[in-house]
Amino acid sequence: MADTLYDFGMVGLGTMGRALLLNMADHGFAVAGLDTDTGKVDALHSEGAGKPVKGFGDAAAFVQAIRKPRAIMMLVPAGAPVDSVIHSLSPFLEERDFLIDGGNSYFKDTDRRALELTAKGLGFIGMGVSGGESGARHGPSMMPGGTEANYARIKPIVESVAAHFDGEPCVALMGSGSAGHYVKTVHNGIEYAVMQMISEVYDVMKRGLGLSNAAIADTFDAWNHAELQSFLVEITTVVLRYKDEATGKELVELISDKAKQKGTGKWTSQDAMDLGMPIPTVDVAVAAREMSGLKAERVEAAKVLKPSGEALPYSGDEAIECLRHALYAAVLIAYAQGLALLKEASREYGYGTNLETVAKVWRAGCIIRSRSLETIRAAYAANPDLANILVDPTISKIVLEHECALRKAVMGAIQASIPVPSLSASIAYLDGYRSEILPANLIQGQRDLFGAHTYERTDKEGAFHTQWEQA
Amino acid sequence: MADTLYDFGMVGLGTMGRALLLNMADHGFAVAGLDTDTGKVDALHSEGAGKPVKGFGDAAAFVQAIRKPRAIMMLVPAGAPVDSVIHSLSPFLEERDFLIDGGNSYFKDTDRRALELTAKGLGFIGMGVSGGESGARHGPSMMPGGTEANYARIKPIVESVAAHFDGEPCVALMGSGSAGHYVKTVHNGIEYAVMQMISEVYDVMKRGLGLSNAAIADTFDAWNHAELQSFLVEITTVVLRYKDEATGKELVELISDKAKQKGTGKWTSQDAMDLGMPIPTVDVAVAAREMSGLKAERVEAAKVLKPSGEALPYSGDEAIECLRHALYAAVLIAYAQGLALLKEASREYGYGTNLETVAKVWRAGCIIRSRSLETIRAAYAANPDLANILVDPTISKIVLEHECALRKAVMGAIQASIPVPSLSASIAYLDGYRSEILPANLIQGQRDLFGAHTYERTDKEGAFHTQWEQA
Repeated sequence: MADTLYDFGMVGLGTMGRALLLNMADHGFAVAGLDTDTGKVDALHSEGAGKPVKGFGDAAAFVQAIRKPRAIMMLVPAGAPVDSVIHSLSPFLEERDFLIDGGNSYFKDTDRRALELTAKGLGFIGMGVSGGESGARHGPSMMPGGTEANYARIKPIVESVAAHFDGEPCVALMGSGSAGHYVKTVHNGIEYAVMQMISEVYDVMKRGLGLSNAAIADTFDAWNHAELQSFLVEITTVVLRYKDEATGKELVELISDKAKQKGTGKWTSQDAMDLGMPIPTVDVAVAAREMSGLKAERVEAAKVLKPSGEALPYSGDEAIECLRHALYAAVLIAYAQGLALLKEASREYGYGTNLETVAKVWRAGCIIRSRSLETIRAAYAANPDLANILVDPTISKIVLEHECALRKAVMGAIQASIPVPSLSASIAYLDGYRSEILPANLIQGQRDLFGAHTYERTDKEGAFHTQWEQA
Repeated sequence: MADTLYDFGMVGLGTMGRALLLNMADHGFAVAGLDTDTGKVDALHSEGAGKPVKGFGDAAAFVQAIRKPRAIMMLVPAGAPVDSVIHSLSPFLEERDFLIDGGNSYFKDTDRRALELTAKGLGFIGMGVSGGESGARHGPSMMPGGTEANYARIKPIVESVAAHFDGEPCVALMGSGSAGHYVKTVHNGIEYAVMQMISEVYDVMKRGLGLSNAAIADTFDAWNHAELQSFLVEITTVVLRYKDEATGKELVELISDKAKQKGTGKWTSQDAMDLGMPIPTVDVAVAAREMSGLKAERVEAAKVLKPSGEALPYSGDEAIECLRHALYAAVLIAYAQGLALLKEASREYGYGTNLETVAKVWRAGCIIRSRSLETIRAAYAANPDLANILVDPTISKIVLEHECALRKAVMGAIQASIPVPSLSASIAYLDGYRSEILPANLIQGQRDLFGAHTYERTDKEGAFHTQWEQA
């Protein structure tokens, strides 16, 4: 039925799906797309005119047109739509064919789907894709998880279309099973943390220092040309400078201060809790988005709970330098939490994730790409078993040089009643992690007193219980 | 078979189960207990000598001995043991009989069990019990959830044995379905937050002020006789003063600084995230326990990441007063988060929970009992629809009077590199909640730029998307 056998199939021809297919076609791969929406199929044909691209509306014809073993990617909304597509395609697939889920799926769903498809003799790759539409079209960062054999089938294609950093493609197998979606979820958790901390710094500049959006944009722009160089700092400048066409005003001033979320940040925090790994900077970033959503309550509370109106204890260039150093340290501390979580998840779930590879794949194309990721990659190259990047010699030196600024920035914001939950959580994480002794001995004593939960001792092995109420 | 028809049955004759049965017997109720461990049955008989108490080893005989409709409580470990007991008792139960799960069960398990038992014509009450062994024996706080009809059957018994506050029993129906276990879970989430904040204050006194355990104990003791009067402050004194029999040393110094957890704090944070309600003080208290568990890593990190060694900016009586006021405000802010979560959970899950009743039940008997809970009860009595206790006139006044101390305490600890994650999260919650405008507009702009997630505007209705990269 098909004129050609296509190298790769894509189900879901929305903006992301079309962009990724066209990217593949630009690299010489013949690609096929499937969508029930004929408008999207037409869009693929017009955008892909002159390229080896073909759109289908019929699943059987689409599957038949792809060379075996077939690699068919889905870019449809996470949840039920993924199961629905799997269900509709499975009858046409043959042994050794496999599906790739490129959405932001929950990693436990990915494990379930892999089991279900394996039982049918089919394969499954859960692949996180980061970079948005522009990334998909010109070079995303991709985080596939699954078997080496299935990955080998798509490796030439995804390596060609991925973002590159120093000549290396920003795609690699993250590990077995749901490793790819897990890594993408943690990527997004870090993204929540960094976005929240940028917004806290913006708030300190705006509420505390009284700077204009133009001045704040210029500051972030300057930061983006030094150690803080990163996609999220870069786009902060773009957002702050944008003029609304309709009103001529700065658009950021017209955007509602209620942040939404789609679940990946929450999943990161929830699963970190299941694994017993602390990622407080992410946790409170999730909570901060929720707090932003309580707009009506905040408006009422602002009338009742008026702050004392104390000023920031810093100003001018000193303040800007302080915030710059603070953000640099805090972002490293956020990466540290996410990567430590990945290390534990890989152990618990048996992913076999290589953290240097994760850092490599995150260096370009994805939303949390930043200059620091090459430093982090080097840390794992030097010590693949590194418990936490904060103890790497290079990174610990950076943190020690910048923590004073982070401390000062947080203390100042607290003095001025400006909420800085994620920056605060970052300094608390650092101070907790570097504490040989924490006050949890008191907590264990309390737990044993009221609940007979027992405690461990420093001077002998075992679990001990005390009858605390002495005569 | 039985001589008497017993008023109430208990499955699981561990310390808690026996204590609660003996408490009931003391109040004149004839009670039966079931355990496969004959040692525990014997213990019940010897401890209950002369009281209307009978132990059984056989499920059929036990069930037959209880008057209809039978009310049989389980006090067994949460999880599979609960299902196992339900499975073994069900064949002997008759219509209108019902089971009560008194353990710390996950609320979604409670919903499932209620459905399963209802399908068999049986009833189910999920009931949180707080107060430990001593509470069970002499007056616990109890949080049952289920139908009015089933609750009516046990009401005289549980009201008799519960702790009392101003003559009112600390037990009441928390709402339908799993409301009881949900309220208990949130109770425990608040407990995590308060314990963490007490331990942070202890750490500031110990590491920052260099006080002895005896001096710290005396301080908490004094606090327990004023506005901070509470069970957790009271037992802090007991734990800090206890001398280890074997070594003669202060026991708290010999307890390992790795805090454990059994899941309720984690569940509170995870479900709050599902409901979109911010409870950051609890979230970071959970993370702090996890951080305490990374002992080996902390020991290594302490060698690499040495703090600068700056001193606390306060000392002496001024420092103690600051910490006292800080803890008072922070605990109110923690209660505020938990109660706001309960309000939303009641709405989402249709519990019909009355928050004044929750505060009433928490005033005595439970682990988070404190003088503040009567203030909180009064706040809900004055306004049952209160969105958040922080905007109640009395409580907002307290918070405004004490927030300066909380701010100062946190800033000082940060300056001295002492981790205070939960105290920090509390001040950030307060400052976020009172902020009419938060910087989430920037986050929404960023999300729309990289992910086309759209944003809302302040000047018109709808969801908007912008092509941010202007010419």
